[in-house]
Parts: sequence; structure tokens; C-alpha cells
Amino acid sequence: MVDYPAIFAAAIDDLKQEGRYRHFADIRRIRGRFPRAVLHEGGRRREITVWCSNDYLGMGQHPALVAAMHEAIDEAGTGSGGTRNISGTTHYHVELEAELADLHGKDAALLFNSGYLCNQATLSTLGHLLPGCVILSDELNHASMIEGIRHGRCAKQVWRHNDLVDLETRLKALPADQPKVIAFESVYSMDGDIAPIAEICALAKRYGALTYLDEVHAVGLYGARGGGIAERDGIAGEVDIIEGTLAKAFGLMGGYIAAERATVDAIRSYAPGFIFTTSVAPALAAGALASVRHLKASNAERERHQERAATLKRRLAARGLPVVHTPSHIVPVMVGDPVRCKQLTDQLLDAFDIYVQPINYPTVPRGTERIRLTPSPLHDDGEMDRLVDALDTLWNSLSLARAA
Amino acid sequence: MVDYPAIFAAAIDDLKQEGRYRHFADIRRIRGRFPRAVLHEGGRRREITVWCSNDYLGMGQHPALVAAMHEAIDEAGTGSGGTRNISGTTHYHVELEAELADLHGKDAALLFNSGYLCNQATLSTLGHLLPGCVILSDELNHASMIEGIRHGRCAKQVWRHNDLVDLETRLKALPADQPKVIAFESVYSMDGDIAPIAEICALAKRYGALTYLDEVHAVGLYGARGGGIAERDGIAGEVDIIEGTLAKAFGLMGGYIAAERATVDAIRSYAPGFIFTTSVAPALAAGALASVRHLKASNAERERHQERAATLKRRLAARGLPVVHTPSHIVPVMVGDPVRCKQLTDQLLDAFDIYVQPINYPTVPRGTERIRLTPSPLHDDGEMDRLVDALDTLWNSLSLARAA
Ligand SMILES: Cc1ncc(COP(=O)(O)O)c(C=O)c1O
Ligand SMILES: Cc1ncc(COP(=O)(O)O)c(C=O)c1O
Repeated sequence: MVDYPAIFAAAIDDLKQEGRYRHFADIRRIRGRFPRAVLHEGGRRREITVWCSNDYLGMGQHPALVAAMHEAIDEAGTGSGGTRNISGTTHYHVELEAELADLHGKDAALLFNSGYLCNQATLSTLGHLLPGCVILSDELNHASMIEGIRHGRCAKQVWRHNDLVDLETRLKALPADQPKVIAFESVYSMDGDIAPIAEICALAKRYGALTYLDEVHAVGLYGARGGGIAERDGIAGEVDIIEGTLAKAFGLMGGYIAAERATVDAIRSYAPGFIFTTSVAPALAAGALASVRHLKASNAERERHQERAATLKRRLAARGLPVVHTPSHIVPVMVGDPVRCKQLTDQLLDAFDIYVQPINYPTVPRGTERIRLTPSPLHDDGEMDRLVDALDTLWNSLSLARAA
Repeated sequence: MVDYPAIFAAAIDDLKQEGRYRHFADIRRIRGRFPRAVLHEGGRRREITVWCSNDYLGMGQHPALVAAMHEAIDEAGTGSGGTRNISGTTHYHVELEAELADLHGKDAALLFNSGYLCNQATLSTLGHLLPGCVILSDELNHASMIEGIRHGRCAKQVWRHNDLVDLETRLKALPADQPKVIAFESVYSMDGDIAPIAEICALAKRYGALTYLDEVHAVGLYGARGGGIAERDGIAGEVDIIEGTLAKAFGLMGGYIAAERATVDAIRSYAPGFIFTTSVAPALAAGALASVRHLKASNAERERHQERAATLKRRLAARGLPVVHTPSHIVPVMVGDPVRCKQLTDQLLDAFDIYVQPINYPTVPRGTERIRLTPSPLHDDGEMDRLVDALDTLWNSLSLARAA
């Protein structure tokens, strides 16, 4: 007979042997004092500074969001109590979808429990709905997109990252009457590079493909109203389906697509991952509504965010630390080895009260292990001094490679 | 070239032609007065009574939950800001997982963004981790389990609903050394029948299979501490993996598994649907913690819930309405036609201010369209009078079939 516990234990051992078994840091952010948080270690607690949160703008403590959530809980209670179709559509959901559609200049939007589920459910449903479809997927697409494409049971082609020549070669080779979906991201979250959206959309038009753009790491952060890179580049109208999250710049939880009405209605009506699950809690929808509205009107957070990222990159480079000069807010610093990457972050936490998670395989390719810093508008100069000094010190003591 | 909008529009038309295109009712529950809610129709608003919520116990307005959410928002802010591994594990998550493990008498538990994602991610990951695995799936399993099994890329066998003979025949025919997972539910949510868990676990033991039990419609509702049917039947220890939701009886949002430590650790370490998504908002975890703790200690809600369901079934039967006499809290009343089912629920809402969603294909097989009533401890005798009278009246005016 099969020894199940032994199989599971062996799977865990594999990870430990490779040095990529994950321990989760048990922390609690301190509202009003972000990026400060309390770290729980056994019975002990101490204060730390978080340098790896995807609450990019610190909206997770914004008074407007906090107030909107409190109000919605008092008005409507805690959970929605049903799937969207069975008593789980509240007026908050309806208003939020309208607001998100407007944010991206689209007819309609559709809310999911997470960006993950949104990518997964939408891409797999496109695969089912479009007869004989092929999905052309950028090779660095996020796990949620890969899962969705795999589950669409349609043909798949992986094109070289941001490579227009490779993409066009593939498009050209496909029959004109075959449905095609080009799936890609705007800001790639681990390398911080940005896709040539306009050029990809031009190719899509020439070869009759549908475009699906994940703006998870850009919504709220780019564009005059926070509509993402597509808004910044003035080409949101050319992208067929824009996907975003409420869990990063918007400071909450949930995901969405925005597109033409018929597209959204088809996904709404056919995607199991949308239909068969309890809808997002009313307080989350209400908080997101407040967040999207705030960031549509206010550029201050975006400007300070970009300034902080540029300043941090400059200061790391000035110390000879191997920071990647990205065209975005993402600040990767390369280490290149999983064990030393973990030593580095352990010592940052233990000796300097600075919390940064090591980024190892499978999130990034082996040999490109790194730390990924996420300065927010709320990381002030003092915090930045302490971070840069600590990294400089540890780079020496661990004999890590400096920038070339 | 492909006309994408036309394909999507045609897919929508198919649904309209079949009478199963879905309009979502736009409602907002009134905290403190559940099951009352406000219905938004265009610019108009009116008060209605909800009879189809899966907030089975009305916990969605319980003061302990409301207070816990408010407190967590004030302490930690709105969103978690990261995946579980990258700054998204708060002390609320850690405490909740410990509480859920204890609820089911297991070593460990693992939290997901929803019950849907939990089923999907866990079952597909089991399929990947267990070499040559076959998953034996009850034919009435929920869409999220079916999706997970499909995506596991392992062998699948569908056994006849709750049929021990069919299950044993299949198990017996499989090699002893082939990994096997039996996936099933305890309370089936549309028919309200209950699986013979003890017998299924006995078969699993005899033939060396792992058991995966979805208790989504039972956690919080059955067992002395709300551990579900497995607790009620005293066999939780025999079930390998228990899956539940925080979105129904517990009144919030989120899903989980509870199992042996190595099993949970393997899923935690390998399931993309767990790893690559922002964790549940701290306030949801805090609210769930309060809910699970409350329902562990209090039986009053469960007792009143069972009494209300039994009373409603008795009263519907007394009027000759075709209620199904389920062994659970689920109260299905059969209509058998999608168009008339929709007429019935439209008229309930328009003429009687009673909100019940019609249940049509694909949620239930064609020809078994029904309404599904969910009496809670907060539906009082007066509400029940109005519901039974309204149904009696409409059964006549729509000439629907009475009970045999
Ligand atoms: C590119 C990308 N898409 C989608 C997601 C999933 O979004 P969410 O956290 O809302 O599930 C993530 C990260 O979490 C991501 O990095
Ligand atoms: C049997 C069953 N399992 C899982 C789910 C999904 O749970 P959740 O609503 O938490 O996504 C549902 C319904 O929503 C269900 O009925």
C-alpha cells in the first residue's frame, strides 16, 4: 500500500535540501506607522521595518479606506453570504465594477476574489469559449496566467520575453481565422521591466489577436488616474482585456478584468472561478471603491513613490551594490545564490530589524536569486539610510559580489 | 480574421435562449436586521427578506465578528500587502490556522482566499505530488473540486453519488500500490443529502486511499464544536484532509484545509494557488478567528438553525408544496423547469418582497430546477408565515405541481 505521509515528507525534504523551504515571517503591520510592523518570534515580539510589501503606496492604512471599511461593516455586516448570483451581489460590488470600468476607459469590469483567480479563470475561460484558440504567452508571465492557460485546454505558445520579433514570427505562422490571445504583463514584478504595449497591440491588430494585459503591478501606480502603464502610454483603448488587482497599490484584496461589455458578460457567465464562489466581502469592495476613487484624483502618492524608488536605486548604486536599474518602481538587488540570499535576509532581520524576503526559485530562475525592495511614499530618508548602511555592511561581511 | 465580439455575443445568446442568462440582484444586507436587506433596482430601493443566503447562522452580523474586524482594521490596516511568504503572514493568519486545526482535531491547517481556490489548488497539487495518482470523485462534487481534479493531470474516476458499492468496485480494480484519493462532500448543498463518511473512510483504509472531504456546507453547523458532519459522526480522525470555508456558516470569506502536518506542509509548499496570491486581509482572518471561537463554544445557533429548518420543511409539506425531506438544514422545493422557476422567484420578489434565487442548470441537472431556501436562526415565525403563504399563492397562480 502507499505510504502517503512518506511521499509528502519526501517532497518537503527536496525543498529543504535545495535551501528553498519557506518559513513565513509572522508579522503584524502597525496601522498609522507603516512601514513599521511587529514581528512575532515564538513568544517574543519586536518592531521591524518592512521593505518588501506590495502595499506599494501605503494605502493599506489610508484613512479613506479604513473609514470605508468600517462603514461598510457597520452597514452591511462581515461577509456577503453568497455567490454573486445567489444573494452575494451588493451595491458595493456594482459600484466598484463601474468605477474600475471607468478607470480603464472600458464598458464593464468584473470582480474576482483575487488577481490570481481572475487570471486563472479568465484565461482558461477564453480558451474554452474561443474555438481552436491558441494563447501566446510571454515566457515570464505570472504563475496565475500560466495556470489559466494550461487549464484552458487550448493550444499554447510561449514567446521570448518582451520580444516583438519572436511574437510576430509566431503570429505570422498562424492561420488568420484561428482565434489568438496574446497574454502578457505591463510591469514584470521581479525584474521591473516594462512591456512594449503599443507595439504588441499593433501586432495584435495586424494579425487579428485579442490582447490580455496583466497590470497587477501598475494599476494605481502609473497613468494620470492610476489606470496603469496602458493609461500612461495612452493606449488603454487598444488593449482588449486589462487585468488588475486590488491587493497591491490599492491596498486591499481582490482582482478584476475590464473590457468590452460582451467580453465581460461572457466571462461573467461562463467562468467557474467567478460563478461558484462566495463574492468578495462587502467591506473589501467598499474599501477598494474608496481607494480607486482616491488614487484617480490624487497624484501625490504616485509622484512620491517614483521619487523614493529613484532615490533608493541611486543610493544603492553609489555604494556599489548590484541594484538593477529598472524603468519602474521595482528595486531588485542581485545575490545569485539561494543560501546566501537567505543568510543576507536573516541577518538584515536579526541584526538590523529590517524585513526583506529572499526571492528564490521558482519565483525567479535559479542563479538569479535576489532581494526585491519596495520603497513606498512612507519610507523616509532615515529608513533609507538604515537600509543602505545595513546592506553595505552585510555585503562586506558575507563577501557578496559588488556591481561590476 | 476572427470576430471576437461576435463569438462572445453568441455565447451569451445561447444562455438567453435557454432561459439561463443570469441577472444579479443588487442588494445590501442591513446589519443588525438580517435577513432584511435593501434591494437596488435602477434608482429605486426597497426592503426585502433574503431567503437564499449561505450565511446560514446569521454570523455575518454577529457583534463578536463585527468587533474583531473593526479592531483588526484599526490595528493592522486594510490589506495584508503580500503573499503569505512575502510579508503577508500576520499573526491573525497564524492564530486562525491553529484554531482551525484544533477545530478538526488535526495537526495543522492552511488558509486560502476562498473555498473554491482551496479545493482547486489542493486537489490539483495532490494530483501532481502523488506519482501515478487516481482521484475518485463523487459525481455530484462541487465545480471547484472538479476543476482541481481536472487540473491535477492525473487519472480520474467518477463514482455514483454516495454509492459505496460503485466506489468499492472501482477501488478493488486498482493496483494496491497506486496512490488513490477519494474526494467527496459531507452535506451536498443542492440536494441536502449527507455522505456515509464512516463507510467511505473504511473503504479508504481497506484499499489504501487518501480521503479528501469538503465540509463547506457543514462546518460551523454540525458537531458539538462546529467541526462538521465528521465531528458529529465522531470520525474526523479517520478523514485525511478536511476542507472548509469561512464564507458560509462562519460569515466571512476564505477557505482552508486541515490535515496531518506533512500533508499541509506539502500543499503549503507546492500549491501555486496558495503561494502566488496576496493573503487574506487581516480583518477577515481576525473576524474568522472570532467566529470559529464563538461557534466552538456555543450550540445555541446550531440548535435554533436545525429547528428552523425542520419547522420550515414541516410547514411547506403541510401545504402540499414539493419540499425535499433532507437530513440536513437545506430546504429544496422542486419546480422542474427553468422558465417557471424564474417566474416564481421574480413574482416572489415583485409581489411579496421575498428574495430567493432560482437554481438552474449547470448548478443542478436540467429538469430538476428548484428553489433552495436557507432558513437561519434569525428567520422568525412571522417571516416564515409570509414565505409559506406566498409560495402557496404562487404555486396556484403558476399552476406548479404539488407534492405527490
Ligand atoms: C503579475 C501578477 N499577476 C497576478 C498576481 C495575483 O494577484 P493577487 O495577489 O491579487 O492574487 C500577482 C501577485 O500576487 C502578480 O505578481
Ligand atoms: C461544496 C462547495 N465547496 C466549495 C465551495 C466554494 O467555497 P467558497 O465560497 O468559500 O469559495 C462551495 C460554494 O461556494 C461549495 O458549495
